[in-house]
Amino acid sequence: MKKIILLLAILISVTINAQTDAENIKKIYDTSLSNGMSYQWLDYLSNQIGGRLSGSLNAERAVEYTKEQLEELGLDKVWLQPVMVPKWVRGNPEFAYIETAPGETINVNICALGGSVSTPALGVKANVVEVQGIDELKALDRKDVEGKIVFFNREMNETLINTFNAYGGCVDQRYAGAMEAGKMGAVGVIVRSMTLAQDDYPHTGSMTYGDLPNNQRIASAAISTNDADKLSGMLKIDSDIKFYFKQNCKQLKDVLSYNVIGEITGSEYPNEYIVVGGHLDSWDIGDGSHDDGAGVVQSMDVLRMFKETGIKPKRTLRVVLFMNEENGLRGGKKYAAEAKRKGENHIFALESDSGGFTPRGFSFDCSDANFEQILSWKPLFKPYLIHYFEKGGSGADVGPLKADSNVLAGLRPDSQRYFDHHHAASDTFDAVNKRELELGAATMTSLVYLIDKYGINPIRINQQLKD
Amino acid sequence: MKKIILLLAILISVTINAQTDAENIKKIYDTSLSNGMSYQWLDYLSNQIGGRLSGSLNAERAVEYTKEQLEELGLDKVWLQPVMVPKWVRGNPEFAYIETAPGETINVNICALGGSVSTPALGVKANVVEVQGIDELKALDRKDVEGKIVFFNREMNETLINTFNAYGGCVDQRYAGAMEAGKMGAVGVIVRSMTLAQDDYPHTGSMTYGDLPNNQRIASAAISTNDADKLSGMLKIDSDIKFYFKQNCKQLKDVLSYNVIGEITGSEYPNEYIVVGGHLDSWDIGDGSHDDGAGVVQSMDVLRMFKETGIKPKRTLRVVLFMNEENGLRGGKKYAAEAKRKGENHIFALESDSGGFTPRGFSFDCSDANFEQILSWKPLFKPYLIHYFEKGGSGADVGPLKADSNVLAGLRPDSQRYFDHHHAASDTFDAVNKRELELGAATMTSLVYLIDKYGINPIRINQQLKD
Repeated sequence: MKKIILLLAILISVTINAQTDAENIKKIYDTSLSNGMSYQWLDYLSNQIGGRLSGSLNAERAVEYTKEQLEELGLDKVWLQPVMVPKWVRGNPEFAYIETAPGETINVNICALGGSVSTPALGVKANVVEVQGIDELKALDRKDVEGKIVFFNREMNETLINTFNAYGGCVDQRYAGAMEAGKMGAVGVIVRSMTLAQDDYPHTGSMTYGDLPNNQRIASAAISTNDADKLSGMLKIDSDIKFYFKQNCKQLKDVLSYNVIGEITGSEYPNEYIVVGGHLDSWDIGDGSHDDGAGVVQSMDVLRMFKETGIKPKRTLRVVLFMNEENGLRGGKKYAAEAKRKGENHIFALESDSGGFTPRGFSFDCSDANFEQILSWKPLFKPYLIHYFEKGGSGADVGPLKADSNVLAGLRPDSQRYFDHHHAASDTFDAVNKRELELGAATMTSLVYLIDKYGINPIRINQQLKD
Repeated sequence: MKKIILLLAILISVTINAQTDAENIKKIYDTSLSNGMSYQWLDYLSNQIGGRLSGSLNAERAVEYTKEQLEELGLDKVWLQPVMVPKWVRGNPEFAYIETAPGETINVNICALGGSVSTPALGVKANVVEVQGIDELKALDRKDVEGKIVFFNREMNETLINTFNAYGGCVDQRYAGAMEAGKMGAVGVIVRSMTLAQDDYPHTGSMTYGDLPNNQRIASAAISTNDADKLSGMLKIDSDIKFYFKQNCKQLKDVLSYNVIGEITGSEYPNEYIVVGGHLDSWDIGDGSHDDGAGVVQSMDVLRMFKETGIKPKRTLRVVLFMNEENGLRGGKKYAAEAKRKGENHIFALESDSGGFTPRGFSFDCSDANFEQILSWKPLFKPYLIHYFEKGGSGADVGPLKADSNVLAGLRPDSQRYFDHHHAASDTFDAVNKRELELGAATMTSLVYLIDKYGINPIRINQQLKD
């Protein structure tokens, strides 16, 4: 009965405010589509700065640029939060070929995986053992692996509608393949690129050796899907062909970097914090437009749109541009640790790190009660074709902010094209559509607007109504 | 009460069949994503054939190619339906410049509108009067228009979420601008391209002179959005600048062409016809990949997937590749006239002519009762993120099949990028994403599967249940 009264209270509140909310949300979408800054910011970040690997000069340029841009918005506060980040460098361009007979070689497209060690200076050449995953590798005898290059060739499942699920079903071979192959005496690892596209781009991404001793750490690289199929096809005819690759990437000492933070202080509940963010670092090949330049500029635009539309937040809104999501998550962890240390009550955090494509909705990591409240707002998004409100994960960078009582969320754009670009040289500005990017920014701003207005705890709405 | 019993009957029927339906629909999506033919067919249509203007050799090549491909599918019947189509030819590349002072010129990108007359052989040069639409033109004095080039520069409304609505709010200036300006003594018409993108592509499209006498018919061309802004900006500083353009397009006599039709004859209700189609013709600039190569190959794939999955239709399924949607609609009219003449009962027709982007759902032109039935199927589409089931228009080519008792529908893909490519040289194969195209084909096939299984009249479902 108490629950029914509560729901009724929410319903009444929603109805009273629906008109204003619909109007304000329309104003937000109009502003983004007519007068958004996301695309212009992304143009600079992608084309004037480019790839922003943690610890690189470009990453520092991106810190400076975004800080300057946030300062121009007239926020209440803009600052840098220091964080030590790993520094991995790719070195010279990688080189690889398939040798079908002595002197008979076919060049293929590879790139070192992030965190990989280099090959020996002259490269490594060996026979190849193809497996479809780590289980298949482990089922082999050590003698079948020793001295060989292990070729992980499991494809992403093309029948999964959400391509992130297809990625999730495959990425273990990239992340842990070299560690497992190293334990069995392999001399190198080649991994099929994590993409559903059939093309010549190798896709990098993070990998780990766990606590493997140095002498078991072997070089690992991604190979393009076209070349993976080539290699696999050749192996079927002649299992004795050799693969050669050479890379001289290395892990250096940690260096100082920053999360970039901007804030509009709340007028009524300044001690309730709402975070919106993306990650400022990217891989070094491509310019990181979709991953995650898009999330960065959209998050900046959320705060800008509050200023632009004149909607004054009751709670404190923060944009956080996290450093080092790709190969360490140090920025996300640091921000959460600092928030905890200061006792800041983060009621909501929203991340955009799934590309700048047409937004379809959000996934929410929260209690049933909060989800019920959020679902009551869904009709407000219908005119914008936002239909996906589901419980699920949020995002890597906001994840460490999780508390029992708060709400985390991730923007969920259309995922069909994402892995065509993810971690590859094809992640460039021209692959981003202006309107799709702007619709994402508006969708994020609208949700932040509602969370700011109503808070996340239904009890509070009830109390506001009685005021 | 009768209505409630009816609805209950539908509900029971839906529940009984939901399991099988979900399984079959999953099979359809899996087939399309793993083993679709849409992308391969579109590659040929776009890259080996190219632009397919009605009456052109390429249009005839497209007729031959698609007929051959349908014949290979083992359908029950494949044939060509003759139809006379208008033949308009573009002639030599158009040429245009802005003259800011004698000899001081800036070249701009234009293309003749489909159906336009040529300029005089040496082109036309005149002062420019800029208007934001036909109403503004009509409000002018004849003397302000006479001897001038009218420049229609109304922009598409970027705040509309469905870009087709933005197109609909602007296209009158392209379609009827030259007719109205001709009546007032103008010597030429330049129209801002119908796109939300800011770039250098002029976008063609159909226009009409109505029954205007020949001597009042003036040449009309589209200008790229970048150049439209250039021209408008210059006019603000100096209203005396001149515009020159030259084009030698012309309308020839009608020629014979064809609709391409393939059929799987229904096993139980062969006299109930279900049509799925797109249009085979396209504009001549670009290769017509999105408009409407996508709809053509998706429609072909619908019938292929019935063969591939082994689902035997109870009703007669027809794929119709309509000729001449772009500048005459003769194919659509012809097909409907023949259907009527033969007394064929077309219970359902589905058109895909909104680009090969991620499908969001359908719009339906039907009775409330049929719509209620269709809405009951919506949960079956949820796993595929298909959420948009609304009443509305269907498509130009299937429109003439409208009857009181039947259902027409249009596939509704994401519309954000559509007008970046529509009718422009940028409508090319590389702008189509394979998965997005295949998801569209699967979504169409799934709806056709349900319509075929249950029919469109709720009464019939009730009867089937009692059998």
